[in-house]
Amino acid sequence: MGKTNKYCFAICLLTSIVINILFTINLYVGGGGGGGGLSWSEKAAAEAEAVAAISCSGHGRAYVDGSINSEGRPVCECYNCYTGIDCSQISPTCAADADSGDPIFLEPFWMQHATNSAILISGWHRMSYRYEDNPFMSTELENYIRKMHSVVGNAITEGRYIVFGIGSSQLLSASVYALSSQNSSSPPTNVLASIPFYPMYRGQTVFFNSESFQFEGDTNAWRLNNSTNDMDVVEFVTSPNNPDGELKKPVLGGKTIYDHAYFWPHFTPIPAPSDHDLMVFTLSKLTGHAGARFGWAVIKDKDVYERVSKYIEVADLGISKDTQSRVLKLLKVAVEGDGKPLFEFAYNKMRDRWDRLTSVFSKSTRFSIQHRHPLHCNFFNQTRLPSPAYAWVKCEREEEEDCTAVLQAGNIIGRNGNVFGAKDRYIRLSLIKSQDDFELLMQRLTELVSLENGSIETM
Amino acid sequence: MGKTNKYCFAICLLTSIVINILFTINLYVGGGGGGGGLSWSEKAAAEAEAVAAISCSGHGRAYVDGSINSEGRPVCECYNCYTGIDCSQISPTCAADADSGDPIFLEPFWMQHATNSAILISGWHRMSYRYEDNPFMSTELENYIRKMHSVVGNAITEGRYIVFGIGSSQLLSASVYALSSQNSSSPPTNVLASIPFYPMYRGQTVFFNSESFQFEGDTNAWRLNNSTNDMDVVEFVTSPNNPDGELKKPVLGGKTIYDHAYFWPHFTPIPAPSDHDLMVFTLSKLTGHAGARFGWAVIKDKDVYERVSKYIEVADLGISKDTQSRVLKLLKVAVEGDGKPLFEFAYNKMRDRWDRLTSVFSKSTRFSIQHRHPLHCNFFNQTRLPSPAYAWVKCEREEEEDCTAVLQAGNIIGRNGNVFGAKDRYIRLSLIKSQDDFELLMQRLTELVSLENGSIETM
Repeated sequence: MGKTNKYCFAICLLTSIVINILFTINLYVGGGGGGGGLSWSEKAAAEAEAVAAISCSGHGRAYVDGSINSEGRPVCECYNCYTGIDCSQISPTCAADADSGDPIFLEPFWMQHATNSAILISGWHRMSYRYEDNPFMSTELENYIRKMHSVVGNAITEGRYIVFGIGSSQLLSASVYALSSQNSSSPPTNVLASIPFYPMYRGQTVFFNSESFQFEGDTNAWRLNNSTNDMDVVEFVTSPNNPDGELKKPVLGGKTIYDHAYFWPHFTPIPAPSDHDLMVFTLSKLTGHAGARFGWAVIKDKDVYERVSKYIEVADLGISKDTQSRVLKLLKVAVEGDGKPLFEFAYNKMRDRWDRLTSVFSKSTRFSIQHRHPLHCNFFNQTRLPSPAYAWVKCEREEEEDCTAVLQAGNIIGRNGNVFGAKDRYIRLSLIKSQDDFELLMQRLTELVSLENGSIETM
Repeated sequence: MGKTNKYCFAICLLTSIVINILFTINLYVGGGGGGGGLSWSEKAAAEAEAVAAISCSGHGRAYVDGSINSEGRPVCECYNCYTGIDCSQISPTCAADADSGDPIFLEPFWMQHATNSAILISGWHRMSYRYEDNPFMSTELENYIRKMHSVVGNAITEGRYIVFGIGSSQLLSASVYALSSQNSSSPPTNVLASIPFYPMYRGQTVFFNSESFQFEGDTNAWRLNNSTNDMDVVEFVTSPNNPDGELKKPVLGGKTIYDHAYFWPHFTPIPAPSDHDLMVFTLSKLTGHAGARFGWAVIKDKDVYERVSKYIEVADLGISKDTQSRVLKLLKVAVEGDGKPLFEFAYNKMRDRWDRLTSVFSKSTRFSIQHRHPLHCNFFNQTRLPSPAYAWVKCEREEEEDCTAVLQAGNIIGRNGNVFGAKDRYIRLSLIKSQDDFELLMQRLTELVSLENGSIETM
């Protein structure tokens, strides 16, 4: 027995020592000190995780490039109405800010997909002005954009050209340049949009003050006074429309720029793939990454494509390659599972918000919101209501012509209808901001509507 | 003795087992499977390191967003004249391409600073359109730009406004808009630049075809025929100049846009901080990150600043926040050691290249390059020669009017002088590309110059 014990002891000791050696090898050869095989990238990764772990009470966010506090860490950047070092204090009298179309409602999705949506960019990443094939555009990214449209079924891209821009914003003006009169002796091209329309169409066209085009206002009003026979026109068709979410068709039947920023399943049923000559999309309203500044145009005609590309080249020699790398990462996540995880998350959020909104407004005669009509959606394969990014609210009382003032008195900030060329009795309320923002908006709207049935009414 | 042996055995076994337990704890608790405390960021970091480790024989680079080969890995993107899966094969008859100002000569610096220059961007990083304070610009980044100028001593920024743009490219046209006539009834502002000048000044001004300004060509020629008394002018002053590297002053004494893209110690002595009303800089020529598309303007006048900011807002709602985060990381490395590591690296490279270039051209009567005059440099605290980004080569033989053709016959590609408004007997050769590119350029130039003394001369 004694000999057996000694033998077992020896075997155990030997085995244990071998395991020690293997662990040691793993520690020093496998990981360079950090474990897991990382070396130069570990510091940046650790920094990102440390910043992500900073608690802002769920009411704000810290970022790797944020202002640094006295402890040497980025500060919490609080959501609207929240303050304090950790964003835990709410200002009770703060206004519900529903002005901007800031798509933060999608932030939780990306936090749930942290691993696959992160990207580490090296110090020497893509220093050159040019890619190998297309000088200013990532081929891989273009492939994924086509894949995205194919998965969602919202646009024909086969046989079409694609151009990237800094948000759809840049592509809107690039498109106007590309479609406007190229002949210097011709009168300027008339640029039109149907009220209510996204104010940037007018803003850009007027600002750039080109000899080649001029903004002529509302399409329907213009049509009453002019004929397209002798005149060169370019019509913006925004579908779904901003601010009211309606699917639109052209009025004139001539050259069009289709602004499809919101033509995604979380905002509207997708009845069929869009098949127009020039269609503009933006990442901001697809994945929520408005800060990345990335959009694209899908173009049928080669000459138009070349003119749009030329615009981008002349304006700024193409968009940031860092951004293109990041967008590629994000789209790889977005197309997973045929897009269902992303769009189900997003649509469920929008649908819930519209359910609650509709419920509040159903109790009101003072205010109304846009009617929504059910339509078959190819993506979700069901008939469903639209769930637009904005509520287009109307003050119904004759004496209440300034709806912005009415809602301001109820401690709600929206965007005045006149910004969109409509009357002041309309106001746009954003439904795509953070959950905090939406909850506060619902609270204020509920209070405001409840006053309609109360004895004391405020203006 | 037997008892002592048993005792030692027992202690050794116990110690070994305890060590194994500690290793096991470290493996599973310390790292979540990977070690080093990382979780969601590890995959992205590992991916970046794996791609960086792909061997392209030193004659190319693989990137995380590159095209994917059959093994599922990004392909090597080879430098000019190199081919093959790992870029190891050189095409012996390939032309030396010295056309573009692609600043790849700085790539090795960033590879040496891999740890500190990497950035990991989370999937939810800065989704909003706006920052907390300035809507479109990172305050931290603005601070580092001011710090950079302070460290180098090449521009006064105190009391000045800063605006970011997509490369200096975008800020050049933004500046023209901002400085041009704001009165629609006034004649268009005359935009001028001194030959030889960077073609984008003309290209943009003509392309945007605004009613507010027009490009009127060479400043000196214009001055002979016009008076500034009654006319509104804006003059581009490029210092150092592109293509010839000269430090320039304005000709007219009116409104100016100073293009200081190359006003850094690796290209020119810094005699004093520049102190002009509107100065434009670009990251491309400071750190070499042309692909990031980042530039900035330093502006004295508040109205001008607001107009330039307005342009950026109207054009594209500000530049990518991903890019701004990355640039901040890069500038933090660039200002380390008061900028000495970066600028010594860069200046040594440029000086060596100029030494070799001068040596080759000293043997030639057929070709000449620009004269360089020593000047005191505040940054390096010495009198030194400029080391411009480009050689401005002239074909001296009367019959050789087309220098581009002459060099093409010597298997060298450059940029024709006429692109800069100069004669065809000038050609610009880029000296800031990769070491491979420069070596090939030197080889071809040496061959070409050696022919001058040979018996058989080719055209």
